[in-house]
Amino acid sequence: MEIEEYYSREEWMRFKAKADQVETPSLIVSLGIIRRRFEELLTFFPYAKIYYAVKANPAKEIIELLRDLGSYFDIASIFELDKVLSLGVSPDRISFGNTIKKEKHIKYAYDKGVRLFVTDSKPDLHKVARSAPGADVFVRLIVDGSETADWPLSFKFGCHPDMAYDIIVEAKKLGLNPIGLSFHVGSQQRDIGQWDDALTKAKYLFDLLEGEEKIKLKMINLGGGFPAHYIQKTNETKEYASEISRYLHDNFGDDVPQIMLEPGRSLVGDSGILTTEVVLVARKSNSNLTRWVYIDAGKFGGLIETIDESIKYPIHVERDGKREQVVLAGPTCDSMDILYENNKYELPVNLEMGDRLYFLTTGAYTASYSSVEFNGFPPLKVHFIE
Amino acid sequence: MEIEEYYSREEWMRFKAKADQVETPSLIVSLGIIRRRFEELLTFFPYAKIYYAVKANPAKEIIELLRDLGSYFDIASIFELDKVLSLGVSPDRISFGNTIKKEKHIKYAYDKGVRLFVTDSKPDLHKVARSAPGADVFVRLIVDGSETADWPLSFKFGCHPDMAYDIIVEAKKLGLNPIGLSFHVGSQQRDIGQWDDALTKAKYLFDLLEGEEKIKLKMINLGGGFPAHYIQKTNETKEYASEISRYLHDNFGDDVPQIMLEPGRSLVGDSGILTTEVVLVARKSNSNLTRWVYIDAGKFGGLIETIDESIKYPIHVERDGKREQVVLAGPTCDSMDILYENNKYELPVNLEMGDRLYFLTTGAYTASYSSVEFNGFPPLKVHFIE
Repeated sequence: MEIEEYYSREEWMRFKAKADQVETPSLIVSLGIIRRRFEELLTFFPYAKIYYAVKANPAKEIIELLRDLGSYFDIASIFELDKVLSLGVSPDRISFGNTIKKEKHIKYAYDKGVRLFVTDSKPDLHKVARSAPGADVFVRLIVDGSETADWPLSFKFGCHPDMAYDIIVEAKKLGLNPIGLSFHVGSQQRDIGQWDDALTKAKYLFDLLEGEEKIKLKMINLGGGFPAHYIQKTNETKEYASEISRYLHDNFGDDVPQIMLEPGRSLVGDSGILTTEVVLVARKSNSNLTRWVYIDAGKFGGLIETIDESIKYPIHVERDGKREQVVLAGPTCDSMDILYENNKYELPVNLEMGDRLYFLTTGAYTASYSSVEFNGFPPLKVHFIE
Repeated sequence: MEIEEYYSREEWMRFKAKADQVETPSLIVSLGIIRRRFEELLTFFPYAKIYYAVKANPAKEIIELLRDLGSYFDIASIFELDKVLSLGVSPDRISFGNTIKKEKHIKYAYDKGVRLFVTDSKPDLHKVARSAPGADVFVRLIVDGSETADWPLSFKFGCHPDMAYDIIVEAKKLGLNPIGLSFHVGSQQRDIGQWDDALTKAKYLFDLLEGEEKIKLKMINLGGGFPAHYIQKTNETKEYASEISRYLHDNFGDDVPQIMLEPGRSLVGDSGILTTEVVLVARKSNSNLTRWVYIDAGKFGGLIETIDESIKYPIHVERDGKREQVVLAGPTCDSMDILYENNKYELPVNLEMGDRLYFLTTGAYTASYSSVEFNGFPPLKVHFIE
């Protein structure tokens, strides 16, 4: 791969300048890239409210940046809520986006001023009704995008349309304000048509609820699922935006509902480069041709999304010449801490201990996934640049 | 399952008394159980030096207990080294047991007094020779226990016997002291015969090196691999000990080498109970019969070894009556955070939100694997009891 496929020369030089100053392993995050991605989203989806999925990267610096840019925030727990509130975000800009919530946490969020909750089951709905009376709720639908998303999200969350219908009706009876539906087509979803399928289901439910129950829903939360730039090719966010806008108009005509987006990966994924160092290059026997390359970051130090080799990060190395396939592994005494064994990366034949490997597009779901001290290794350090 | 299959009534009452005082999720660790396991190992393997694999649970309280019981320590990084030294363990009781080491870390350990290192490749050996001159080294062999270990360790670490031979010969030339061989048959290894195969390989190398190179090795590190008590049945450590002793004598006759053991899971696994609470019990559609049970601990809060459902923890719940299969999942907005979906656990039909689920045998590879703040959730808290 060429670094130019992923970053402008100027962006890369800024990463590199910081990387040269810090010890490995560390994550370098460009706030400038996040700003540009956010502004792109505003341009492509001018009709949408953008809720940043804080879990993708909960760094204070990122929350502050997006706060100042006018973003809304999707939180997964009261711990994220506390963080976002402590940084001066008002509670009316926050959506409690986890369908799995303790009742005391719902109450906690309500007492702090949060009035927007997702749900996908009656037991959760009843908790919301008791502890967040009168709040706005939306119901998460199951959609099946698992075959074309690199990180499928379909089965743990959401409910089938028949149950969504019942939940909406019951929400109203319980004094809540059912405002709409949400779905997530899977993180890093490559098939734009998935949004069309999901919107068709949503439209069906909108019509049914209005016709049979006189409940007029007014909002659709399209979730996340827009791409960051990994090795697998995807369409650009712009393409997603224009197709999705078309699907919305095809389904809803002139009566398009309010749209929420919950980008995480697409907003911050590209912003990070994880700088690592080669600790060891070794073979397993005198006759074995495959080199094992061990680096100082691994599954437990930020790269957990290499599990099942799901996410294939682009890797940059500053050596030219012939390349050969390697197995790439992390530094811990855990056999699971192998990054790529089946999808072999090609690295220079003259790769040496001490060389740096740069994992591109590591701004999302890395630092927050680090283990506290597995094998004693400290959590991933993060540095910010413009 | 019955709690009595895993703990004596007295042990369980002690866990329960503490559990009743603390919020979920939290890990409760019995130092008394660790003491008894350590004393058992001393009894079963009176001829062995026991190196506790700190990575299994690096809690200060456990290191202090084992320090006082006379244990040696196997460390995976200089960070574990610093911790163990800071607790008053002398460096001659420490083995640097990671084959993947930065050269500056080897030097750091050497400067602190560590004189025992594992290796499995020439590049690593050269680093040890340069930065830990004259140190004792042992070479880790690849053995293939992957089909019968619940957590196989065979491919990332170790080298084939042909290369081990070369490394030993070169170690001597480089002024190091090659003292022996190590192997790990896989964590939670259920087939005792794996040790026999590995010892036969070791004996072959011992003889060849003495005959051809006049190098007399004197130590074998049998690694870990002894079982903790999960759902899958295994032999007791006593059985392992008597079989392994027999293999040693079968292979080495009266000239049995010094034996190192590196127990981690078998020493501390049984000592922990992870106390969790049911957050939500839900179905996905009106016609779907499978209940999803969501609890407040998951893959990123200590239960990462449920990946691929490898480790099947016994789960205790204090409700009687009819049971049905469920899918069990953690509290984060991540679809990977499902604990058991294919191997379905049977839980009481009358299970309710707020009920507690106790994950037994969670003393090893739980707290140290916790993520720093995934979805904002804080790392797993640990409490100690006698």
